[in-house]
Amino acid sequence: MAQKPSIPKGTRDFGIAEMAERNYIFDTIRSVYKTYGYSQIETPAMENLSTLLGKYGDEGDKLLFRILNSGDAFADVDLSAGSAAITKQVCEKGLRYDLTVPFARYVVQHQNEISFPFRRFQIQPVWRADRPQKGRYREFYQCDADVVGSNSQLNELELVQIVDTVFTKFGINVIIKINNRKVLTGLAEIAGFPDKVVDITVAIDKLDKIGLDAVKEEMAERGLTVEAIAVIEPVLGLSGSTAEKLAVMRDLMSGKSASGIVSEAGQKGLDELEELFGFIDAANIGNKVEIDLSLARGLNYYTGAIFEVKAADYAIGSICGGGRYDNLTGIFGLPGLSGVGISFGADRIYDVLKGLDKFPAGLTTSTTLLFANMDSAVLPYLIPIAKELRAKGIACEIYPDAGKLKKQFDFADRKGIPFISINGSNEAESGTINIKNLSTGDQQSFAATDINGILAFLN
Amino acid sequence: MAQKPSIPKGTRDFGIAEMAERNYIFDTIRSVYKTYGYSQIETPAMENLSTLLGKYGDEGDKLLFRILNSGDAFADVDLSAGSAAITKQVCEKGLRYDLTVPFARYVVQHQNEISFPFRRFQIQPVWRADRPQKGRYREFYQCDADVVGSNSQLNELELVQIVDTVFTKFGINVIIKINNRKVLTGLAEIAGFPDKVVDITVAIDKLDKIGLDAVKEEMAERGLTVEAIAVIEPVLGLSGSTAEKLAVMRDLMSGKSASGIVSEAGQKGLDELEELFGFIDAANIGNKVEIDLSLARGLNYYTGAIFEVKAADYAIGSICGGGRYDNLTGIFGLPGLSGVGISFGADRIYDVLKGLDKFPAGLTTSTTLLFANMDSAVLPYLIPIAKELRAKGIACEIYPDAGKLKKQFDFADRKGIPFISINGSNEAESGTINIKNLSTGDQQSFAATDINGILAFLN
Repeated sequence: MAQKPSIPKGTRDFGIAEMAERNYIFDTIRSVYKTYGYSQIETPAMENLSTLLGKYGDEGDKLLFRILNSGDAFADVDLSAGSAAITKQVCEKGLRYDLTVPFARYVVQHQNEISFPFRRFQIQPVWRADRPQKGRYREFYQCDADVVGSNSQLNELELVQIVDTVFTKFGINVIIKINNRKVLTGLAEIAGFPDKVVDITVAIDKLDKIGLDAVKEEMAERGLTVEAIAVIEPVLGLSGSTAEKLAVMRDLMSGKSASGIVSEAGQKGLDELEELFGFIDAANIGNKVEIDLSLARGLNYYTGAIFEVKAADYAIGSICGGGRYDNLTGIFGLPGLSGVGISFGADRIYDVLKGLDKFPAGLTTSTTLLFANMDSAVLPYLIPIAKELRAKGIACEIYPDAGKLKKQFDFADRKGIPFISINGSNEAESGTINIKNLSTGDQQSFAATDINGILAFLN
Repeated sequence: MAQKPSIPKGTRDFGIAEMAERNYIFDTIRSVYKTYGYSQIETPAMENLSTLLGKYGDEGDKLLFRILNSGDAFADVDLSAGSAAITKQVCEKGLRYDLTVPFARYVVQHQNEISFPFRRFQIQPVWRADRPQKGRYREFYQCDADVVGSNSQLNELELVQIVDTVFTKFGINVIIKINNRKVLTGLAEIAGFPDKVVDITVAIDKLDKIGLDAVKEEMAERGLTVEAIAVIEPVLGLSGSTAEKLAVMRDLMSGKSASGIVSEAGQKGLDELEELFGFIDAANIGNKVEIDLSLARGLNYYTGAIFEVKAADYAIGSICGGGRYDNLTGIFGLPGLSGVGISFGADRIYDVLKGLDKFPAGLTTSTTLLFANMDSAVLPYLIPIAKELRAKGIACEIYPDAGKLKKQFDFADRKGIPFISINGSNEAESGTINIKNLSTGDQQSFAATDINGILAFLN
């Protein structure tokens, strides 16, 4: 009868300590989102598969968790039709795969209730039937903020400011990298290969790892001509300040490259980057912000700015990212609404905070004071005192079962409770309570009515 | 291509206003749980079906949402085996149906990491394939607190105190009803029908509605003899103080009933109730707490105390409930661990707060100050001011797209933003900012460096 309990692979239980640490991450991000006027929404875990399918590519479709229709899902189903056809008939709903597509669906469905520009944040789990491995889970939280209905680069700035503020609060130094999809489009255009944006970007991305010659070789392998590679080469050596980088790119996009081709998309992208970096100068960002033309994140859907954030002092890959997408709600029948957003990777941020030992002390201490229980006759004396301390915000526990002190001290120790109060019938008669600071050993007796004195001792 | 977007029936989107109100409910409950030393955990949305099946009765098994195995779920499946057999083969996981069974699984799985008595709370959604109807959803949040590993009635008291404190904070008057399963067992024993606990309780529960004679009739229909009904009759007229009720019951259980049968279970239940009400007297509970022997909630699993909470001034049924269960973890191989818990019904509490107009004012106001944007050249002047106010905790938005003031005032109005700041190049040159209180019409100009003055005006 008894089962050995377990949970599905790729999922996790979060115990007390980890939960407190994760809440610290979520609470910090939430508080910063709020100061920028972002408001929280939630969408259901289950979406209609018609909402989800086709939005994440073929691979994404395969990774959706599908929910069997309720009732007898197999009644009236043609079981000879093959797996795919049966699946289609017996499953109409799937679990949320990310927060972006449900948000797009939300905006279209509720467009008449929404005040645009609409700034929303959302912190909810998503599910993917990925093969579980270290650091990759089948259930994980995303923490997204997006604004839709505004084309202004001010939105990009504010997302950069949010990133800067969040990681400053975490005590994690980061590098915020910014690219612009239009500039990449421009690069492909001036090279004479407008359909090779991804090839060019992927090759450039390898510069640090494999060096200039190997990148040129890779471009050639990907079908670029010698002439095209010559057009791109100045970008590979791009250095100096943001203004210097932008000036080089401006020349290239305005017909001063070896090809002489002018790219309007590329110039528009540079306009956006210039405006954004103008705002960034005004905002006095604490962390390093830099243009990185090799940033290839989300090339399939981003149409303007692309963001990626890495920890400066901890090797773990991207810990936050995002970008601008011009037509996300179009697939749900609402074209022409531009959006830009970011997403914090809670699991990786957790690992960085752990790895750099940056979680604040005391985060997992939940109870401040344990009232020991040696004699249940004393409980009616302790109950009102504990009640009053709780009303003042002090988390108290009364050890529920009367018994040996050793066990109760062990309990306080394992839970990291910093204060213990041991009282018997003498204290009840004299109206006093004893409190001991378990780390310093300090012990003091208070009149039970001296709540302020007790509070001062506990703080 | 464009789809008309919708969500699965029985599920909900929570927009900005509703989300803020729901967070108020969750935050209030969470803060009270914490002062009693309860710590938060989370378990995965998906559990193995072997964990869930058989825990909620046949009806519950039918209401589980099952998740199709990933990959080709139908490969190597015998499709001629019938719906039930196919379902078993293609679905190994299901969505969480409540928080109690996953908690029991958690305790057993992590028993070596847990310090008992273990006080945990959990606020997460659950899913049930119920037929959707007004007030009944297929996805809804539960807010549970349970303590396992202690038999003391002090735990019952603290749960009553938590209920009292939470509803006091909400400004909702409640009646907290308490029963004890052992007393019901005792009642069936002294009536000579120990297997008719549920029949007797269900009949007693109708007393208010149908009256004494009809209740006696129903008991007869349910197979009780005239003699048995005579034994039970004194309970039906039970009135007076808790002490008086307990005294009547004490007589009955100790052999002074018409049957003369002594019930040890009944006496044990009365001992528990007496101890609990002794603690309740010491704790000075603000809301009404009363014994209600007709409380039939969870008779299949509760073994001691049974709780139910109703709003005194709003008819909606139970808004919180719980009880003690002696062997929940037994099914997962860890017998002998007693637990007691409560669960707040967030959706009904939401309805009561709405119905009684008890949500605090200003809950859904997310942004305090909107900087209007008439001229994007002024933005570099405004950005650092907004940044400084945000650092002081003031939620600000800068309207991102330069344009007509009318549209920006409308935006502030629709979002309920109480202050607007309108500045042009004159203000930028003189280093001042104007702020207008949109409800009073008060307007004032500040030096941009006078952050304290601005803060005072905004508060």
